[in-house]
Amino acid sequence: MQQALNFVKSNHQRYIEELKTFLTIPSISSDPERKQAMYDCAEHAVNLLKDAGIDNLKIHNTPGHPVVTGDWLHAPDAPTVLIYGHLDVQPVDPLDLWEKDPFVAHIQNDRLVARGTADDKGQLYMHVKALEAILKTDGKLPVNVKIILESEEEIGSVNLPAFLKANKEYLTTDIAVVSDSGMLAEGKPAITYGLKGLTYLEIELTGPNRDLHSGTFGGAVANPAEILARLLASVKDEKGRIQIPGFYDRIPDMTEEERARIARVPYNETEYMSSLGVEELWGEEPYTRRERTGARPTFEINGIWSGFTGVGAKTVLPSKAHAKFSMRLVPDQDPDEIMELVEKYFIEKAPKSVKVKFIRHHGGHPVVTPIDSKYMKAAEQALAESYNHEVYFLREGGSIPIVADFKKILGVDTLLLGFALPDARTHSPNENIHLPTFFTGIESLVRTWYYFVK
Amino acid sequence: MQQALNFVKSNHQRYIEELKTFLTIPSISSDPERKQAMYDCAEHAVNLLKDAGIDNLKIHNTPGHPVVTGDWLHAPDAPTVLIYGHLDVQPVDPLDLWEKDPFVAHIQNDRLVARGTADDKGQLYMHVKALEAILKTDGKLPVNVKIILESEEEIGSVNLPAFLKANKEYLTTDIAVVSDSGMLAEGKPAITYGLKGLTYLEIELTGPNRDLHSGTFGGAVANPAEILARLLASVKDEKGRIQIPGFYDRIPDMTEEERARIARVPYNETEYMSSLGVEELWGEEPYTRRERTGARPTFEINGIWSGFTGVGAKTVLPSKAHAKFSMRLVPDQDPDEIMELVEKYFIEKAPKSVKVKFIRHHGGHPVVTPIDSKYMKAAEQALAESYNHEVYFLREGGSIPIVADFKKILGVDTLLLGFALPDARTHSPNENIHLPTFFTGIESLVRTWYYFVK
Repeated sequence: MQQALNFVKSNHQRYIEELKTFLTIPSISSDPERKQAMYDCAEHAVNLLKDAGIDNLKIHNTPGHPVVTGDWLHAPDAPTVLIYGHLDVQPVDPLDLWEKDPFVAHIQNDRLVARGTADDKGQLYMHVKALEAILKTDGKLPVNVKIILESEEEIGSVNLPAFLKANKEYLTTDIAVVSDSGMLAEGKPAITYGLKGLTYLEIELTGPNRDLHSGTFGGAVANPAEILARLLASVKDEKGRIQIPGFYDRIPDMTEEERARIARVPYNETEYMSSLGVEELWGEEPYTRRERTGARPTFEINGIWSGFTGVGAKTVLPSKAHAKFSMRLVPDQDPDEIMELVEKYFIEKAPKSVKVKFIRHHGGHPVVTPIDSKYMKAAEQALAESYNHEVYFLREGGSIPIVADFKKILGVDTLLLGFALPDARTHSPNENIHLPTFFTGIESLVRTWYYFVK
Repeated sequence: MQQALNFVKSNHQRYIEELKTFLTIPSISSDPERKQAMYDCAEHAVNLLKDAGIDNLKIHNTPGHPVVTGDWLHAPDAPTVLIYGHLDVQPVDPLDLWEKDPFVAHIQNDRLVARGTADDKGQLYMHVKALEAILKTDGKLPVNVKIILESEEEIGSVNLPAFLKANKEYLTTDIAVVSDSGMLAEGKPAITYGLKGLTYLEIELTGPNRDLHSGTFGGAVANPAEILARLLASVKDEKGRIQIPGFYDRIPDMTEEERARIARVPYNETEYMSSLGVEELWGEEPYTRRERTGARPTFEINGIWSGFTGVGAKTVLPSKAHAKFSMRLVPDQDPDEIMELVEKYFIEKAPKSVKVKFIRHHGGHPVVTPIDSKYMKAAEQALAESYNHEVYFLREGGSIPIVADFKKILGVDTLLLGFALPDARTHSPNENIHLPTFFTGIESLVRTWYYFVK
């Protein structure tokens, strides 16, 4: 193990250069024009894994973007680990807020800045390098490994459940490991044991059959942008509680133990507000901020548009108004049931002066994994030694639908070892990964595989 | 007069071809890239007027787009009329809803379709042709005429008041005539005696200092798109009454005479709804639809945008949210005072989790002109004879700020003779002018000038 750790320490510069190349591929899965980039990215990953010493590499076509698999299965009595990562990234708009080209990584203040550094190319690359370090020094891995890299995580992993079902026997392992989450702060490692589910909807309201002159027709017909504002404004009461009937029905009360575990995690509210540039926090009463983001469901408007949005003034009464919004869910909310409750709420509440249409985007189940397994304890030790700091156990607001699918389809629990820092700006301009954390993270993954069989 | 009317009748085809050429100039005043088109359009208008027989033509530069003036002043004892029109047009988006290129006019069902056909190139062209018909047949006009064409009507005539002040002596006439409004319906002529004022604002809310991951941060901070929805939703109560303190203070109660005059105008609500494709109308209670659009102030959202508005799903909690909205005003509301009341309302109502910024767009004063002047009666007779139908007197929801400026700066009342039909789609895709109405309208303008001195 020590040789592998030394190997990691002596390869930092190469890791940066290799990762930079990997990051140049604009693998935006939601952009229909990036189909080729998605395939290029899968090929690139295959080459990285081949160089690391992984066998049986394959690119699988799906109805959407490709899936990459590979394995190393030469540790007969050891457990088998399924390592998951995703090759696709979020869109880059608003482009003008990026300091440099989002697909040309640059280093700033110990951080590598580019789309995909933290979510998730940088983190899956750490796994590849940990395996490589062990294979190049020890000649074998302490555990068996199967690898699955998908290209549709940012669009809801739409084709992965079918892939898991079709390859269930191959993919069923002792544990899955996913690195697509974060640490508590620099030097403070964390294991995420809870993730939220997701329901994402787009609504289109149509009022008059065309854009109208707001002078000639203002006062005569309902303005769909105004109706949309009213509908969206009605979703929460003044205490931030979601008013959609049935929304909270399946959520058990938080236990005192859970509240205490969340409260134990260090947190500086003043710093938190200052890093976001806000003068106050806001959310569902009577919960704390960390309970809201980690353990309570949320409703957020992700986008809204209607009418004239160009420069200057156009006196139009718009025909249509649109919004994208998503709910983050906690156990035991069901994304499909929530989708139906939400659609019903909007349809019933909309006046008959508008027609309501929905586009259903991706969803995912919430998940909370057991925090006392031997794998969790091994990872805790690996992280604690690598970062020389106690490990925190987190429930996070992000959604990794595949974690629920691993459990539901394969019967496999997932260990979430994440290395993004809170200001990694995932999904935002200037996404980054903190390089010292990244290098130490590779070491912690090396240790994890050895401690799995200790 | 009869010769001039015959001249009009025998020139229909030429009028269509000339107007088509005029309409090819993309004179969108709000588009900073159209500066040259604005100047080209002014030159084109000068040539049209020169060919018609108008003297002293000039293009005046302003801090914005140019103003054209010209005159014919050889009727010593007759009144002097100021004819106003505007050369600029509204933006053309959404472009995909146009059946053909908005700047390549085509004929469909007796209508000429292109941006500017109704608002206002087509209507000002009618004036040029009426003058031409008289000068070409009679050799002289029955009245003196001064012409002023501006290029900034669609952006609030920002530089015209200063121009009026600087040229007050020249421009002060007995009456102004503006054709930038509409008829009641095909074959039903109308004179507009009331126009609304306008206050147009743009609001920008800033919440967190960057776009955030809606999973990681959802539930922690207020979402500016949600705050914007709440603020906009709060502007009206459930009966459509605007809740901004002081908004209605300067509006006198409608007189019974006024309500009766509005009620006398024929109106088929079923057809109206069907033409708009809506199942119900909506507006301020307890007023009728025509009272709301004509004689009551309104508040309309003209545009709203925030977050991710592309194809697909992006799980972002946006940093900023924007809206453009405008109020149509009635006497004696003051656009500047209303602007301040509205800004105050939003600033006071916004929670401290967002920063509020306003961009002030153009405004204009409301106006109601006397309906019993000799000019009004002459025009009424001219319209009634030309269309062989009684003339209706209308208060309209549109704003022509210059009409208030003519009164305030020059002391001149304005006669509004409009020829757009209700489905002219001004400000919308497929704007059009109905050609039979257009040709008869030119004849009615010929008659108007003769009846002014009868």
